[in-house]
Amino acid sequence: MRIYDLITTKKRGGALTKEEIEFFVNGCARDEIPREQQSALLMAIWFRGMTDEETTNLTLAMERSGETIGLSALPGVKADKHSTGGVGDKTTLIVAPIAAAAGLTMAKMSGRGLGHTGGTLDKLESIPGLRTELSREEFFRIVKTCGLAVAGQTGDLVPADKKLYALRDVTSTVDSIPLIASSVMSKKLAAGANVILLDVKVGSGAFMKTAEEAEKLAQTMVAIGEAAGRRTEAVITDMDAPLGFAVGNATEVAEASAVLHGEGPRDLREESLLLSSELLYLAGHGDRETCMRLATEALTSGAALEKFCAMVRAQGGDDSVIRDTSLLPQAKITHDVLAPTDGYITKTDAESVGVVSCMLGAGREKYGDAIDPAAGVLLKKKYGDAVKKGEPIATFLTAREDALPEAERRFLAAVSIGKTPPAPRPLIYARVEKDGIERFT
Amino acid sequence: MRIYDLITTKKRGGALTKEEIEFFVNGCARDEIPREQQSALLMAIWFRGMTDEETTNLTLAMERSGETIGLSALPGVKADKHSTGGVGDKTTLIVAPIAAAAGLTMAKMSGRGLGHTGGTLDKLESIPGLRTELSREEFFRIVKTCGLAVAGQTGDLVPADKKLYALRDVTSTVDSIPLIASSVMSKKLAAGANVILLDVKVGSGAFMKTAEEAEKLAQTMVAIGEAAGRRTEAVITDMDAPLGFAVGNATEVAEASAVLHGEGPRDLREESLLLSSELLYLAGHGDRETCMRLATEALTSGAALEKFCAMVRAQGGDDSVIRDTSLLPQAKITHDVLAPTDGYITKTDAESVGVVSCMLGAGREKYGDAIDPAAGVLLKKKYGDAVKKGEPIATFLTAREDALPEAERRFLAAVSIGKTPPAPRPLIYARVEKDGIERFT
Repeated sequence: MRIYDLITTKKRGGALTKEEIEFFVNGCARDEIPREQQSALLMAIWFRGMTDEETTNLTLAMERSGETIGLSALPGVKADKHSTGGVGDKTTLIVAPIAAAAGLTMAKMSGRGLGHTGGTLDKLESIPGLRTELSREEFFRIVKTCGLAVAGQTGDLVPADKKLYALRDVTSTVDSIPLIASSVMSKKLAAGANVILLDVKVGSGAFMKTAEEAEKLAQTMVAIGEAAGRRTEAVITDMDAPLGFAVGNATEVAEASAVLHGEGPRDLREESLLLSSELLYLAGHGDRETCMRLATEALTSGAALEKFCAMVRAQGGDDSVIRDTSLLPQAKITHDVLAPTDGYITKTDAESVGVVSCMLGAGREKYGDAIDPAAGVLLKKKYGDAVKKGEPIATFLTAREDALPEAERRFLAAVSIGKTPPAPRPLIYARVEKDGIERFT
Repeated sequence: MRIYDLITTKKRGGALTKEEIEFFVNGCARDEIPREQQSALLMAIWFRGMTDEETTNLTLAMERSGETIGLSALPGVKADKHSTGGVGDKTTLIVAPIAAAAGLTMAKMSGRGLGHTGGTLDKLESIPGLRTELSREEFFRIVKTCGLAVAGQTGDLVPADKKLYALRDVTSTVDSIPLIASSVMSKKLAAGANVILLDVKVGSGAFMKTAEEAEKLAQTMVAIGEAAGRRTEAVITDMDAPLGFAVGNATEVAEASAVLHGEGPRDLREESLLLSSELLYLAGHGDRETCMRLATEALTSGAALEKFCAMVRAQGGDDSVIRDTSLLPQAKITHDVLAPTDGYITKTDAESVGVVSCMLGAGREKYGDAIDPAAGVLLKKKYGDAVKKGEPIATFLTAREDALPEAERRFLAAVSIGKTPPAPRPLIYARVEKDGIERFT
């Protein structure tokens, strides 16, 4: 078998066989295929796409390129939830405790933030003492004791994806649905959950800019998960504006804690309950109405809050900051951004808010950069809210005084204020199951 | 400037600026751009193509990536002729002497054979003693003395093309009209001729399989040449069947010598006269009728033969083999292939004949392989000829007895014999000039 022939087949629009895809993935994982040939094939895939069968074969070959986690040693239904990435998306901090409180096993591996999107590990590490780099034994022990743990990747999962992702990143081949789907799903499959819920974000702050693209990605990932024998579903949710009001790390933990205390922003609470309920539904805990009731009870009873605190303690963190969020790291400088005019907020571009938060110290430009746990953006007004000129529409949290002018300029460019209230926007666009799509708009 | 942005622009169908193309070409020539990014851009170009302006800028940037030959030091109009590659195409051995005899300066750099196509250098080196690796001084001296010389590339011409071609060769991005056109034309421009005649082959034995592709390539190359201030024209000629009867090295020299002696196959003589006449026309030696008369006179008077013999001697060769071709290297084994049935030859697939010739020892699979100068295929019957069952339709020339059965099987598969004579085929399809195409069919 020759990689040259695979490139030629794909370039001309043909489909690759299972054996050809395995040859490619293993050749990449073992550095046996020159990078220039890997990237030529990736670009040909970018143009020609892949059939569902090819994408599934690619995912399975990547999953098998490394270790798997072996969650089967753990009790109960192992559930996983994955977001394609957004701004202010702290739902994992709420959904994992609710699902665990309702009886699921949440052994969750998460990532760090990069560019304009945040990462769950960075957010959790703003809790004093909390560690996310756990050994496999520690991770399993905490999951067994608490029903949940959130950690960085343990073991050598999906090495082929690591290499291919690094290559895609420099060759402008990241934005390909089969390549995104196989990258996400190979890691989900290797992580070993029985049920997988995908939160596919759509909008200006998301990778998928249109509902059509988001649906295609969701369908592709659901098909892969089901083909691999995992109960898999996707919801398509809004990321035109940040979720909730808080964007950053400690500030997002504070907002998630508020929801766990029965408070917090309505959109964040609603989306977290939906995700939790869908996880319970996939795990067979009853019909959707029952599952929504179970999720709501886990939240309102305080059981989810207790699960979260137990996990924080088990991972070495100080859970008093969850009960009193003023104990979380606080920014040296708080700077209010004022409304330049009267009116109604008609846009708060999520990607730009993410970039501003990064500029203020909450994010990193490249892997390995340090971040400021206290930095971020706290929105005061969101889509549809009435504002008066001179009223604060956001508070910047930072230690970087010199970053403020450019951050404010960028933030104001990202916000639109209109004369009349805008039409309401949906939070959830659609639910994608193996058998079809249910659209809510 | 970032190569990533160039890949993204091209991938999305945009055009690259002159500065971006220069950045790419220089980065490749100096090994400053990683090969995986080079190949991603090449594949995006394969899919999206290039505008005429982009292709010209690519060509000029490649031309400037290395040395140029500086033919301006030589007297007269410097003319060059390039064939996109065929089987049995020995026209350079006839056209260069005719053109030189008619007063043009032919300082010709040629290549070696690879795969199913032959190379002028290999053919010439079947003449005992003849050297094609000449220093620049030697090359210039011979051109000044004889009016012509044919040599391998001297100096570090177009290093960017060498690197990009090697990369295209392993990433399945060779068959792209802008990439082919810029590769050919950058070398022609760097070689420095004032007038350039392109012989674009079309048919089963050529890179361009259809007249439409051939016309597009011809137009692209002519536009580049004219934009660079060289009088440039292309002819599109048939390569469905080999040109002439001889395919190999010494056997092709013998056939070219026959034409220079006023004999030889009609198609080879006709095409050689046309190419010579067009070169004279481009050089301003009169209208096309006059130029055809001048070319014919140079051939029939024996002046072209004398020029060729003078060149052979000047390059260290024994020109007695041109006057008596039985002195050229002779094959150890001659094997007749017999017609399997009565009828008329309706196809002699050029590519397959080239492959068979290579199997018999006349060609090489990869650069550096040794070749057998005496090996090849001598056709006995061609398109339209009547054959009787058992009559020889070709003679194999080889030293490889073990290659004969497979070579014969392949050869017979490449030949079709029909019950009725096929319709005549044109030799020349079209002439492409800056201002338009003249089609002859």
